[in-house]
Amino acid sequence: MKRIKLTVAYDGTNYCGWQIQPNGITIEEVLNKRLSHVLKEDIRVIGASRTDSGVHALGNVAVFDTDTSIPPVRIAYAVNQKLPEDIVIVKSEEVPADWHPRYCDCEKTYEYHIWNAEVPDPTRRLTTCFVSYKLNLDKMRQAAAYLIGEHDFASFCNVRTNVENTVRRIYELTIEQNECEWIIRIRGNGFLYNMVRIIVGTLLRVGRGYYTPQKVEEILKAQDRQAAGGTAPPQGLILKEITYHSGS
Amino acid sequence: MKRIKLTVAYDGTNYCGWQIQPNGITIEEVLNKRLSHVLKEDIRVIGASRTDSGVHALGNVAVFDTDTSIPPVRIAYAVNQKLPEDIVIVKSEEVPADWHPRYCDCEKTYEYHIWNAEVPDPTRRLTTCFVSYKLNLDKMRQAAAYLIGEHDFASFCNVRTNVENTVRRIYELTIEQNECEWIIRIRGNGFLYNMVRIIVGTLLRVGRGYYTPQKVEEILKAQDRQAAGGTAPPQGLILKEITYHSGS
Repeated sequence: MKRIKLTVAYDGTNYCGWQIQPNGITIEEVLNKRLSHVLKEDIRVIGASRTDSGVHALGNVAVFDTDTSIPPVRIAYAVNQKLPEDIVIVKSEEVPADWHPRYCDCEKTYEYHIWNAEVPDPTRRLTTCFVSYKLNLDKMRQAAAYLIGEHDFASFCNVRTNVENTVRRIYELTIEQNECEWIIRIRGNGFLYNMVRIIVGTLLRVGRGYYTPQKVEEILKAQDRQAAGGTAPPQGLILKEITYHSGS
Repeated sequence: MKRIKLTVAYDGTNYCGWQIQPNGITIEEVLNKRLSHVLKEDIRVIGASRTDSGVHALGNVAVFDTDTSIPPVRIAYAVNQKLPEDIVIVKSEEVPADWHPRYCDCEKTYEYHIWNAEVPDPTRRLTTCFVSYKLNLDKMRQAAAYLIGEHDFASFCNVRTNVENTVRRIYELTIEQNECEWIIRIRGNGFLYNMVRIIVGTLLRVGRGYYTPQKVEEILKAQDRQAAGGTAPPQGLILKEITYHSGS
């Protein structure tokens, strides 16, 4: 029995997120079916990050156990032949039998892409959030600075969750502008439900002038979801990478 | 009666190209229907470039005549409310009554996007052509240089066309690499059927080492479609801009 770690990329447009659910097709479900088919075993993957409907990934991580004789690094190739075009296994590798994608010490990097122009670019509508109003980059960067470091992010957590500890650490939060495309990059040791999208929704209010940059400090202190901005739409979000410090 | 020029952007994925045809829905058809609905007249647009199925545009151009009282610059806004998300009118403006998008002296700029990596990026699968083999940038640039200027491009024209004059002028042909994404940019005074995609297919053979850069000069001289490389797939192609020297 071997434990296999997969690095998975997908376009989330046509899926009801990662996690198996009764109302629609999910990434986890498609992976389980295709892996089971190719490896001729009943495979159930465990994912690192349960991305929402419409959210994309270039580096989500999943593990599963198998008795297959296919060499670990070849599993990606074999399964990619059977996967739909919007899901790709980037890498497959063996990890220790006790390695778990959610219990390890890790860093996740997300990017949020905004298309800021007078009219949307239809070729980017499924991978960016379109914003037609003017944004103030300096003020957004000032606001972002308040979020870096270890904080209680209770104000930046969807209330439909009952996580006990809402303290997380953000290592990096940068905003970059390349013509119409704005990229907000966030790297941290873990993220609460909708945390990145609520941070982006809040930064957009700062960029528009509805909030001062200093308001973000108050929002953090409030520890109340009502204090923060809206949840930015899913299609702008992409899980870029998960880096594990211990284990694989 | 006013003549209105539209600048049109679209994601070509879900359309059978620009031109109306019996077997599937096209950009031209959707524009005619939505314009007729909003302006309450029977509108028939004339397009500058009949892009193929799966090809995208940020700046295709179309004109039509109308008696509407809606100010010309407001037509874009009014019709965008009724268009599907994958078609956007970027701009609407009045032009002289005799202005025609195909008979004017113009320059067209196309970009072809290649995703060169070991595995495809699923979020870019509909807007790039995935190439897994290594490409030699210097040799592709050497090959491209032979195509710049005025030439008979008969070797770079789909045979299912009976255009009389196959001489065209390419003003610019550059290849740029940004990590995995390669962008081939071509600006010219007109393009034959599939010309950009056949040029790209030929440059890819050079990049892979199947053709020498010098071979491109021979291909031009042959004036025979059989001499050139394959037709690169449509999803990597985007019509960026059409610039008119005379008229609007």
